[in-house]
Amino acid sequence: MSRSDRFLRALRGEPVDTTPVWIMRQAGRYLPEYRATRAKAGDFLTLCKTPELACEVTLQPIDRLGVDAAILFSDILIPLEPMGMKLGFPNEGPRLEPVRDEAGVRALRVPNAEETMPFVMDAVRLIRRALDGKVPLIGFAGAPFTMLTYAVEGQTGKQFAETKKLLYTAPAVAHQLLQKLTDTVADYLAAQIRAGAQVVQLFDSWVGQLAPEDFRAFAAPYVKKLVDTLKPLGAPIIYFANDGGSLLADAARLGADALGVDWRTPLDEARARTGDGVTLQGNLDPCLLFGPVAEIERRADDVLARAGGKRHVFNLGHGILPGTPPEHAVALVEHVHRHRLS
Amino acid sequence: MSRSDRFLRALRGEPVDTTPVWIMRQAGRYLPEYRATRAKAGDFLTLCKTPELACEVTLQPIDRLGVDAAILFSDILIPLEPMGMKLGFPNEGPRLEPVRDEAGVRALRVPNAEETMPFVMDAVRLIRRALDGKVPLIGFAGAPFTMLTYAVEGQTGKQFAETKKLLYTAPAVAHQLLQKLTDTVADYLAAQIRAGAQVVQLFDSWVGQLAPEDFRAFAAPYVKKLVDTLKPLGAPIIYFANDGGSLLADAARLGADALGVDWRTPLDEARARTGDGVTLQGNLDPCLLFGPVAEIERRADDVLARAGGKRHVFNLGHGILPGTPPEHAVALVEHVHRHRLS
Repeated sequence: MSRSDRFLRALRGEPVDTTPVWIMRQAGRYLPEYRATRAKAGDFLTLCKTPELACEVTLQPIDRLGVDAAILFSDILIPLEPMGMKLGFPNEGPRLEPVRDEAGVRALRVPNAEETMPFVMDAVRLIRRALDGKVPLIGFAGAPFTMLTYAVEGQTGKQFAETKKLLYTAPAVAHQLLQKLTDTVADYLAAQIRAGAQVVQLFDSWVGQLAPEDFRAFAAPYVKKLVDTLKPLGAPIIYFANDGGSLLADAARLGADALGVDWRTPLDEARARTGDGVTLQGNLDPCLLFGPVAEIERRADDVLARAGGKRHVFNLGHGILPGTPPEHAVALVEHVHRHRLS
Repeated sequence: MSRSDRFLRALRGEPVDTTPVWIMRQAGRYLPEYRATRAKAGDFLTLCKTPELACEVTLQPIDRLGVDAAILFSDILIPLEPMGMKLGFPNEGPRLEPVRDEAGVRALRVPNAEETMPFVMDAVRLIRRALDGKVPLIGFAGAPFTMLTYAVEGQTGKQFAETKKLLYTAPAVAHQLLQKLTDTVADYLAAQIRAGAQVVQLFDSWVGQLAPEDFRAFAAPYVKKLVDTLKPLGAPIIYFANDGGSLLADAARLGADALGVDWRTPLDEARARTGDGVTLQGNLDPCLLFGPVAEIERRADDVLARAGGKRHVFNLGHGILPGTPPEHAVALVEHVHRHRLS
C-alpha cells in the first residue's frame, strides 16, 4: 500500500498498512519556512489570497513531516468577505463588523464561490499539480454554527454571549443566518472539490459551547444539509466538533465519513458513543509536542491502542501550536508509522 | 422544611421540599447594586479586601433572587498574593508575574491564611452574622490545578501552552507547585470553615483543558488531598470541574459531597457517569438567562427532569454573565422553587 492511499482508505473504513496521520495547522507558524513565506506575503490575508504562496505553505510540511495528507492553506473566515462582511486580521486575530439583527442578516449575500474566491480554487489546482498524487489534498470550511459565532461576535468569541443572545432571543434570525452560511459553505466546498480537493473537513471550532439541545437545534441540522449536498460529489467528509465530547453520539448521525475528536475524550470512549460506522480522527493533546519525545511516543501509543487499529486517522486533538519544535512533529509521524497494522 | 435547610440537606443526599438553587457569581456585575458598591470600593481588589464591602455584595442577591445559599464574595486568586506573587486586575482581567521554573516555585511561601488574609475570615464572620441563619454560607477557593494555570500563565490562559509545557517538560516542578497550592488552599479553606463557612466549593475552572490521563496525574490527587484534609471539619465540599464532562467518573471518586456540572453535559448523562453517591449541582447555560422567561422555564424544567429530583442543587452551568436582566434570574429561582418535590 502506498502513502497516497492510506488516508482515503481509512476514511472509507478499509484496511490500511499503518495508521494515516496528518496534523491540524501542519502548515503554520511553528515552521520557520512558513514564517518566511508569511513575511514575504506581508499580511495573513494576502498569504491566503495568493495561490502560489498558499500552495507553497501547503506543501512545506508534506515531506518535512512525512504526513499522509495535505490540507489547503486558507482560513475559515474567507467566505464571510464575499458574503458582505469586511474582514481584517489586526494583531493575528480576526475582526469583523458584527451582524446581530434581521436587517444585517438580510443584507448578507450567498456568493458564488468560483467567482468571488477564485484564488482558493486556483490554489487547490496548483497544489494538486504539485503533489502529483503523493498524498491526497483536504479542502475545508468552517461549519455554519462556528461561522455564525464570528459573524455575530465580530471576533473570536470568549463567552459567546452575543451569539447565544441571538439564538435565544431571535432564533428565526439565527436560522436565517445559518441557512445563508450553509448555502455559502455548500457552494464553496463543492467548488473546492471540483477544483481537486479529494476530502473536505468541516471545522466546528466553537460548537462545544453548545448544550446538546442547542447543538441539535442550531448546528447539527445545517451540518447534515451540507453532508447531504456534498456527499454525491464523492469526496469523504470529516466533521470536527471541537470540545464536543457530549455531542459525539449526535454528530455520528450526520452522515460524515469521519469525526474529529479533541484530546479531552479518549478514542475508546468516543467510539463507544459513535458506534462503528464512522472513522475517528485524533486526538493527541497538541501541547504534548512540547514535551520529550519518549513521552510523545508513549502518549501516541495510548491513542493508537484506544483507537484499536480500525477506522482511525491519527491527528492532534487541536491545531499544532506556535513554538512547537518541528522535529517533535516529525518524531510523532514517524512513530505512528512504525506501528504496523498489516 | 425551611429555606435555611434545603441546600445542606441536598448536599447530604437527604430529601428536600423543593430543589435548592443558587447562582454562580450571583453577587456580580449584572446587579446594579453590585456595580454601585464596586464603584464605592474603587478597584476590584479593594472590594475583595474590605470585609464590610465584601459582606454587602455577598448579601445583595439573597433576598433579591430568593436563592437558598450565599457565597462569599472574593476571588480565587487572593491566596496567590501571600504566596509571594504580585497580583493586579488591570482591565478586569488578572495579571501576575508568572512562575515557570523550579527557583520560582521554591520561592513561593505556604502562607498562614488567618494571618495573611484576615479580611476574608472577617468577611465570613460578618456575613454569617448578617445572614442570621437565613441561608447557609458557601466559602470557596480555586482548585490546585486551576491556581497553577494562573501562576504559570500569569493571566487567564487561552491555550494553556505554558501550563502544559511545565506539566510535560518539568513534571516534578509542576508537582512541587501543586503541592504548595494544595497546602495553601487547605489552610485557607479550613480557616474559612472555622470562621463560619458552612459549605466550601472548589472551583477548577480550567481543568477541562486536561485529557483524562493528565487530570488523573495533575489535578485529581490534589483535590483528593484537599477533600481528605477538610472532610473532618464537617462542611460539605462541592467540586466544580468546569468543562469536565469527560472527567466526571473520575471526579466522582474524590470524596466530594457534590460535583458541579457545566451546561455541556445533561444531568442524566452526568449521573450515569458519577453514580448515585454524590449530589450534582447545575446546569443551565448562563446565556439562557438572556432569553425570554418562557424559554428559561422550559429549559429549567428540562434540567429538573434530568436531575430526577434526587441529590440535585440547581445552578447555572457557569457564572451568570454581565448584562443578564436580574429579573430573569429572579424568574428562574421562583420557577425552580415552584417545582415541589415533597
